[in-house]
Amino acid sequence: MATYSDLDGIAAAAAIDEARLWSHLVGFGEIGGIGGGGVCRLALGEEELAARRHIASWAQSRGYRVFVDPVANLFVRREGTDPGAAPVITGSHIDTQPQGGRFDGAYGVIAALEALAALDGASVKTRRPIEVVAWTNEEGVRFTPGAMGSMVFSGALALSDIAGRRGSDGVTLSAALASALAATPQATFRPTVPPIAAYVEAHIEQGPELEARGIPIGIVEGIQGVRWFDIEVSGSGAHAGTTPLSRRRDAFQDALRIVSALNDWTSDRGDVLRFTVGRFDLTPNSRNTVPARASLGIDLRHPDANVLREKGDRIAAIAAAAARYCAVSVREVFTKAPASFDAAVIGTIEAATRLLRIPALRMSSGAFHDALFLNDVCPAGMIFIPCEAGISHDPAESITSVQAAAGARVLAATLVALAGADGDVR
Amino acid sequence: MATYSDLDGIAAAAAIDEARLWSHLVGFGEIGGIGGGGVCRLALGEEELAARRHIASWAQSRGYRVFVDPVANLFVRREGTDPGAAPVITGSHIDTQPQGGRFDGAYGVIAALEALAALDGASVKTRRPIEVVAWTNEEGVRFTPGAMGSMVFSGALALSDIAGRRGSDGVTLSAALASALAATPQATFRPTVPPIAAYVEAHIEQGPELEARGIPIGIVEGIQGVRWFDIEVSGSGAHAGTTPLSRRRDAFQDALRIVSALNDWTSDRGDVLRFTVGRFDLTPNSRNTVPARASLGIDLRHPDANVLREKGDRIAAIAAAAARYCAVSVREVFTKAPASFDAAVIGTIEAATRLLRIPALRMSSGAFHDALFLNDVCPAGMIFIPCEAGISHDPAESITSVQAAAGARVLAATLVALAGADGDVR
Repeated sequence: MATYSDLDGIAAAAAIDEARLWSHLVGFGEIGGIGGGGVCRLALGEEELAARRHIASWAQSRGYRVFVDPVANLFVRREGTDPGAAPVITGSHIDTQPQGGRFDGAYGVIAALEALAALDGASVKTRRPIEVVAWTNEEGVRFTPGAMGSMVFSGALALSDIAGRRGSDGVTLSAALASALAATPQATFRPTVPPIAAYVEAHIEQGPELEARGIPIGIVEGIQGVRWFDIEVSGSGAHAGTTPLSRRRDAFQDALRIVSALNDWTSDRGDVLRFTVGRFDLTPNSRNTVPARASLGIDLRHPDANVLREKGDRIAAIAAAAARYCAVSVREVFTKAPASFDAAVIGTIEAATRLLRIPALRMSSGAFHDALFLNDVCPAGMIFIPCEAGISHDPAESITSVQAAAGARVLAATLVALAGADGDVR
Repeated sequence: MATYSDLDGIAAAAAIDEARLWSHLVGFGEIGGIGGGGVCRLALGEEELAARRHIASWAQSRGYRVFVDPVANLFVRREGTDPGAAPVITGSHIDTQPQGGRFDGAYGVIAALEALAALDGASVKTRRPIEVVAWTNEEGVRFTPGAMGSMVFSGALALSDIAGRRGSDGVTLSAALASALAATPQATFRPTVPPIAAYVEAHIEQGPELEARGIPIGIVEGIQGVRWFDIEVSGSGAHAGTTPLSRRRDAFQDALRIVSALNDWTSDRGDVLRFTVGRFDLTPNSRNTVPARASLGIDLRHPDANVLREKGDRIAAIAAAAARYCAVSVREVFTKAPASFDAAVIGTIEAATRLLRIPALRMSSGAFHDALFLNDVCPAGMIFIPCEAGISHDPAESITSVQAAAGARVLAATLVALAGADGDVR
């Protein structure tokens, strides 16, 4: 039996304008565009402030109120019929990597704005207000840490503890935040966090699974856990021409033994576990010098906390045993346990895909997102759309207008369900 | 039956003053000293010019004439009894690595100056003049290529082809050479290369063999050949969290397969072949990104030209076969065939060690030296002394005064034999 929300959700989804959404995405990607489809909008930088001004103007021209909070998270609010109801929040981030693409983050914000426009177009009223948010500094490039806006918003991080930090360009965070607040004078300053009914974030998958399976929507059940390890291998530098191999303590060769052993230890037939050596530095890194030191940056991920614990806990011992000549030190530098999104939000997204007859896949997110932190303070979930070859954080990042529209339709129907259609039983 | 040369050689060797030599070496190491026993005397830089001034003053105060040539090679000449005879040249270089030691290069120059002083002290007259040389820019740090002075001197390189090059600090080579020529105004400019009777260079081994065997002198029979290869492994960058291992084209993991295969291919039970991966660079080299590219710098050495050819020629094919997912390109960027020093010079050095009853080992040099280029234009040879743990190109480079004196004694006796004692049959 269809509810008012179902009918309104279908109407809102039908009002998503694929051409309008696509043109908005493409135009937004020109703010900080670096050619070849690439974007450079570092958090709170000039180009990112221009993107904020664009969103605030867009909202103002459509009669939405705009809010900004102390960490410069930017909110566009479509009012509900119940003025006191806690809002449903949706959105993502608008900052990018230095050589980023047009869709990582931006898709979730622009698709959410399109959803507001579609609700208007379909004359859908919701009980709860819906707010579209652009979280500050998700990428963590200019200022650390990443996901700063959502962490401060959710209470995982105190702004006062980081306000004095300087960005990679020497500007203090507090000065950069002041510039951002000044960039959108039409925004009302909202110093405290309102109660939130739910959070849903649309995002490109940044992985290859949806495209490979030909499925347009991913329903994200959770975000896999991660453990980061630094491994330092210390041998002895020596002349490559004069030192027999039997007398070497070659840090590169021992690093190779360590990685081989860790490859074996983390091998997973099911191909769920993800083990990556993404950073590798040799010292002195000179062709004719036997490497004295090797430094490895390890990224280990799994959605199951038990597997992550078991596999991660033995990395130090396996690395030490694999080295033949060098000293090995292993340090865990970061860890985040796997997170599960709210079952009701997951169910609501799934219901929206059924309602719209759009095929969907329940999946785990390999990457972090702002939703990870919102998940700690309200029921949260995520909607993924495919991206070409899984490429992200790269100018080659690519999606189609059809994929963009499908995600926006599911998001619109999900928002209607979460915010409650005006005729629903409260 | 002892010759005049033998008797004069023994007298000259006996006149080597261990304390004076050691004090000269230590004092010389303070020119450009960086603490901890380290030295930074980049070729033609301020500190290296100070070292030139020191040598020229030392020579002048002892009545030796000083010469300098167009590439700023600096010569200290002790005249022989036959004014027209071609000189015997001995020496090495006085420039260092940025974090170099006190003995690499400097030992060969200061020991040669001590040999001149010993010949004077023992009142030994030689038929041929003996010239102590400090070759310009052996290390190749500030200006490329290394061994520049000996290459230009021997005709392997035309100064006019490189004079316009800029150093790592932006100074042109021609300007730096002009400064060096101006630094020793007492030196006579000698634009053309004289005929040379023989060249002998004393040097620290820069390897561990002599120390490990407890032998004070190495008689260098030749310099092993070298082939340098650049290997580029091209995969695809991807998010470490979102990309299953089965869908990766991980350049690091393929580089690891390539090095394992090359380790097997170059494995040598006799431990003569030297295979080194000294340079290894990942792109983008970010912990949570699957490496898109790996770049390896390979150094392969062997004293036997046939082995070097056989092993080197298959590196490209083996690397390509070992990669599982990535494209591989292999480029040979430098090659130098093994060199054999002159049998008569080798025999003369060996005879000197027998005469002085100093144990010696015939060996191959793993490193390049200026002698490699002199070997193309005159009979040449080298004398090695041990250095602690084979460490070189490092402030920890270390020798003892006893080791230094033994090498200087063998050098002095060798020089007398090569230059001919005054009473010898001509």
